[in-house]
Parts: sequence; C-alpha cells; structure tokens
Amino acid sequence: MQVVTLGPVGTYSHRAARSVADDVSFRESVSAIVDAVADGEAERGVVPVENSIEGSVSESLDALTEADVAVVREVVTPVRHALLAQSENFSIVASHSQALAQCRDYLEREYPNATPEAVASTARGVERAREDPDVAGIGHPATAEPSGEGKTLQVLAEDIQDRSSNATRFLVIAPESERSDAGGKTSVVVYPSANYPGLLLEVLEAFADRDINLTRIESRPSGDRLGDYLFHIDFEAGLYEERTKAAIAEVEEIVANGWVRVLGSYDTEHVIE
Amino acid sequence: MQVVTLGPVGTYSHRAARSVADDVSFRESVSAIVDAVADGEAERGVVPVENSIEGSVSESLDALTEADVAVVREVVTPVRHALLAQSENFSIVASHSQALAQCRDYLEREYPNATPEAVASTARGVERAREDPDVAGIGHPATAEPSGEGKTLQVLAEDIQDRSSNATRFLVIAPESERSDAGGKTSVVVYPSANYPGLLLEVLEAFADRDINLTRIESRPSGDRLGDYLFHIDFEAGLYEERTKAAIAEVEEIVANGWVRVLGSYDTEHVIE
Repeated sequence: MQVVTLGPVGTYSHRAARSVADDVSFRESVSAIVDAVADGEAERGVVPVENSIEGSVSESLDALTEADVAVVREVVTPVRHALLAQSENFSIVASHSQALAQCRDYLEREYPNATPEAVASTARGVERAREDPDVAGIGHPATAEPSGEGKTLQVLAEDIQDRSSNATRFLVIAPESERSDAGGKTSVVVYPSANYPGLLLEVLEAFADRDINLTRIESRPSGDRLGDYLFHIDFEAGLYEERTKAAIAEVEEIVANGWVRVLGSYDTEHVIE
Repeated sequence: MQVVTLGPVGTYSHRAARSVADDVSFRESVSAIVDAVADGEAERGVVPVENSIEGSVSESLDALTEADVAVVREVVTPVRHALLAQSENFSIVASHSQALAQCRDYLEREYPNATPEAVASTARGVERAREDPDVAGIGHPATAEPSGEGKTLQVLAEDIQDRSSNATRFLVIAPESERSDAGGKTSVVVYPSANYPGLLLEVLEAFADRDINLTRIESRPSGDRLGDYLFHIDFEAGLYEERTKAAIAEVEEIVANGWVRVLGSYDTEHVIE
C-alpha cells in the first residue's frame, strides 16, 4: 500500500506514515497529499491535525473539508525533540521556527549564547548540522544517524521540548469510497450557513443528549466571507451506532441551510518510539 | 509606543503591527513576542490567531493561555499574495510552504514547470528572488520594492492565493495591567478540568442564554495529558456589559474544578491596503 505524507525522511509525519505502510513517499504540502489520495495516486495519506511543526493544521482541516477523502485512522506520536550536533561547540541552532519555540526554555537555559536560525523544516536544520560543525539541529533522536550520506551526529540532549508540546496527532486519509462505519471515533464538518446565538449550541446538544462526548471542536473560516465559520467536530462514538446516526440526522435538520460532511469513523493508534 | 511582532520587514505581521504604532521591532517566535510584552520589554505585541503563514496560531493560543498579558485589539488584514521575480524567466518558486500551498492552483495552472521550494518565510523567498533571476517569490505587492539594498522585482501577478485564504487575523497584546472592559468583542480561555458529555455545552449555554454570539471556538490540548483540552472562546459582547459578567460568573461555577481566564475586551481594526 502506498502512503504519502510530508517529508523529508525523519519527520514526525514520516514516522506516523510508517505505522500505516512501508511504502512512504513525500509531497510538498498538505493539500498535495489530500489531492494525491482523492485522485487515486496514493492509497493513503497522513496529515497533521494537532500540534504539528510540519505542515499546517489549518491547511489540513480546510483540505479535508473540500476533498473527496475519508478519515480511516488517527495516529498519535510523542514529540521527542533532541539536540543534535557534531559536538558541543556550536553557535547556531537551526530548526523550524515552531520547533525552536517549543525548545526555547531549554535553549535559553543551557545555551544562552547560541543564535536561533529559522529554516524551512526540522530536517533541514539537522542537515545543516551535518554539513557545519558550528550548527546544531533539533530532531527525533533517531535522526542523528543519516538516512543516506552524511555525518552521524551526537545526541547532546533528549526531550528538550516544553511540557505542552508532548504529542502530535495525525489523520490517515483514504479515498472516499473506503469510508468506514467502524471505530470508536468520528470526525464531521458542519457548516451552519447562519450565525445566531445558540446555533452551535443546538448542534452540540444533539450529541450531548445522546451521551456522546466531543473530543475536539474547531472553528474555521468558511472562505465565503469574514466571520462565516464552519466547525470541525470529533466525537467518541462510531458511525455504526444508532445514537450517532440519530445525532447526525438531528444536526442536518438544525443546519438545513448549510450542510454536514461525515469524514468517517476510525480507531486511534499510538506510535510509541 | 514600541510594538514587537514577527519579522522581517514586509510580513503580514509587520503590516498589522504598523497599524498599532510606527516603532516596530521583531522577535523570532510568538512565545518570544508574548514574553517581551509580559516582561515589559515592549508595550504591545502582535500575534497571529487565524490563517497565518507567519508563526503558529496554536503557539499563539498556548502562549496567551500562560502569560500575563491582555488582548487589547484585533487586526484583520487581507491576504494579498503577489508573484514577484526579476522577469518571467524563472524556474523555481521559493516561499513558505503554507504560502506555496495557498497559491498552488494558480502556480500549477500558470507555471506548471516551476519547482516549488520551501524556505523559512515568504520574506526569505522574496530575498532569494532579488538575488537570483531564476527564482520567484510570493509576497504582498508592496514588497516588490526593497526596504534597503537590493533589486526591485516585477509584480508578475496579484492576488494569486486561493479563495479560502482571503484574510488573516492578529491579536494585539499588552501587559495584563492594561486589560480593558471596553470594546465589542471578548476573548476567554476555559479549562474545564473534566470531560463529560455536555460540559462544553453547559459552558456555551451560559452565553447563548444571554444572546451572546460566539465568533470562534477552538480546543487546545492542555498539555497535562492527551485528550485533556482547554477552550479558546471569542464572543461578541464587551466585559463592561452586565450580561457578559453574568455569563462568565456562570461559566466559573460550571468549571469549578478548572478555571476561566479573561484575556480582555477589544475592538476590531481592518487594515485595508
């Protein structure tokens, strides 16, 4: 099975994708991944939906709203930022701006004289560290070893990220025809096409009335006009359940002028290493 | 008044910051901006909260949750991506990965042979275009003119972003002592410290019962354990209003084991150019 995600080798996306299949190839953006799956170029895609430093979470949510794909699995991976360099004698830390921010307390405490340098990805920072003894990168400890040519780096410190950056969450997508009713979680997108006090409330009531716990809710601009939102809602119930069908039917009635898009039911996989 | 935001010159953040004050300086991350304001190094900070390609929106939400700052204004700027190069004869488009994604339809249609290259920022891409006739960048049309040294670029096309990337939203932050009750919008963070079906519903009911319209709701991991969330809620009512005070008091009762943090009331400014 072929799976596409954000590269290069060694990204958290790559790790999450390898838990789906061995045949991983890369695309340059979340939209390109979603399109590759919708167009049948790849059987699965892996996109970030929470705490990502690779690709944009909002781009994922927007792409899922628009494309003919289904969500078939969720993958949760721990964030394990390590400081990687040829030796302790570096003066620059090159990484993605968000990884630099996630490790800022550690870097300011342990290496107050090192200059942070924003580059396009964590992988690009590690590559810089392999090329230049004056540069350190931030990456998963396993990336100290080069995947091809290049120097092996020292792991100067592990788990240097701050407390709140402890995990990142990905969704595995498939062509829409493979949408499943099985699994303990479901993702839907709701576009009310109206904005009055209590409308979102009515939508959420449809779930609460049936003891369905929401695990995530996110508003995204609809793109039609400023202040016009759609809502991404994840909840702990499968589409195979009667209560889920009833809740979704009620939401469809509530947002009669808008729409509800069901992305699929799925289970969660935790990647440990 | 000194305001800090994400650089370099010419970013959307810079544009938003200039609507606050003329004395703009740059920090390398959202957390660094929030800290500069909390520590009294700068009087105002400007951070992205929606549709940003500069800095991370989730980093903004997390930083606002933790730091001693208040929200005093909201700035909405239109996204106006232009294609900038020395001439039509380029083979590479260098930009931030998210800007490349936002312009993907246009680039694939008009320049199918150009190779996208992800760099750390849109500004870095425009800088690359000034240095190298083979490279195009993506930026606001005003950045065709260099701020210092360097070549003036041609604006090959304007408004090349896709439809859904039409605006970006920033919050202006100040030291917590300057928190204001005036203004038509309010931002709060709610941490329920419990997760049962209907809890979020009860929170939202407190607003709906008082005809207060929610304009945005976003769940963020609390950082304590996976699946434990806090909620960023924006609504259309000022803290000076009795109904707002009553709603917040009710929410505080509902989440008695957690907490409610009021970030402030504020008005919206639209940056036109």
